[in-house]
Amino acid sequence: MNAKINQTLKAANLPDKTIERLSQYRRNLLQCLAKGKQHIFSHEIAQIHHITPVQVRRDIMLIGYSGTLRKGYDVKELIDLIGNILDTREGLNAAVVGVGNLGRSLIGYFSGKRSKLNIVAGFDNNPEKVDKIYAGVHCYSIDQLAEVVERERVSIAILTVPADNATEAAERLVMAGIKGILNFSPKPLNVPPHVYLEEIDMITSLEKVAYYVKKQGGEE
Amino acid sequence: MNAKINQTLKAANLPDKTIERLSQYRRNLLQCLAKGKQHIFSHEIAQIHHITPVQVRRDIMLIGYSGTLRKGYDVKELIDLIGNILDTREGLNAAVVGVGNLGRSLIGYFSGKRSKLNIVAGFDNNPEKVDKIYAGVHCYSIDQLAEVVERERVSIAILTVPADNATEAAERLVMAGIKGILNFSPKPLNVPPHVYLEEIDMITSLEKVAYYVKKQGGEE
Repeated sequence: MNAKINQTLKAANLPDKTIERLSQYRRNLLQCLAKGKQHIFSHEIAQIHHITPVQVRRDIMLIGYSGTLRKGYDVKELIDLIGNILDTREGLNAAVVGVGNLGRSLIGYFSGKRSKLNIVAGFDNNPEKVDKIYAGVHCYSIDQLAEVVERERVSIAILTVPADNATEAAERLVMAGIKGILNFSPKPLNVPPHVYLEEIDMITSLEKVAYYVKKQGGEE
Repeated sequence: MNAKINQTLKAANLPDKTIERLSQYRRNLLQCLAKGKQHIFSHEIAQIHHITPVQVRRDIMLIGYSGTLRKGYDVKELIDLIGNILDTREGLNAAVVGVGNLGRSLIGYFSGKRSKLNIVAGFDNNPEKVDKIYAGVHCYSIDQLAEVVERERVSIAILTVPADNATEAAERLVMAGIKGILNFSPKPLNVPPHVYLEEIDMITSLEKVAYYVKKQGGEE
């Protein structure tokens, strides 16, 4: 059995969890490749991610690829195929809205981690930050949002404003034509269906850890 | 019908998603209280969180509380009851492991947001950071981990080290007796069952947003 690529399959709607795992597989496959590993079996990928080999094979079949019995998957080929699914050819531009401590650390964190996603602008309502450069990224006034989003063709916003400003900032982003928001602010947002919203609720995650630690301790 | 509190129910195992929502309800209830609102209906809570009133009532019944038909829930009472579920009486101590940009911003972000969770230490392997104070938190050498965790009774770790250091750091934390880990490092971790692990995968979240933006754009 030879490695097979059936790219026509990739147009299918992939499950949300498969998208997440593909992103995670790729990150570890890149590390494997950097270490000179050229082939990998599903059970090896499974072990890295603490899931079953069946799950791995299912996800990879969903993107129209299968490995060989003898050698497994070609690492380079698999990375490229996942890239075809997740990335756009010319890359996407993102902006960080709220250039506080968290916003600045995320600019640094995301820069360079993904070649196909460029952080091209920051926005803040603090006049002292406007026209400053943070980790190589120009900070604009929030009042320039619509103008800069259009000029820089920004389609993704990383929202790190305080809770009280989140609703207004999200409305401005939607008005400016943003297509996707990664929301770090501790405020539930309401966006129209054509805007994809992903929320990272760090306070709740920490409270969950605390709850389970408390429960484990038998204090309940 | 009067408000009822049946605290014996709270010992039950609550669903994971209910824990998350209780944390989110509380955050918004605190804002309501700050604005002087003393009673709230399930449909009002539902609207804030973009879920159904039935879901809200079910979650709140699970913690043994019910409101009155006329006035809804007593905001203060509900906040206290959620606190009984999520918090320990004397609070829990947490440490940030990896005092880079992200670690430092999280120290600032989490400090003061939750009175029942105190960040009491930072750890880093960079000698230049050791014995410095970041946002009021003392940074120790990672070699002092076991000693400081015991002395400061740290039960929760917020892990923000680079991917390459994550596995070793997690092993050290488990050895030191940590009970819960909130992992921000882009590396899947393996911990024993008595340690609760919550992972926040920011890169994957951003890649998911990019995938859906691409899909929406019809580029597929």
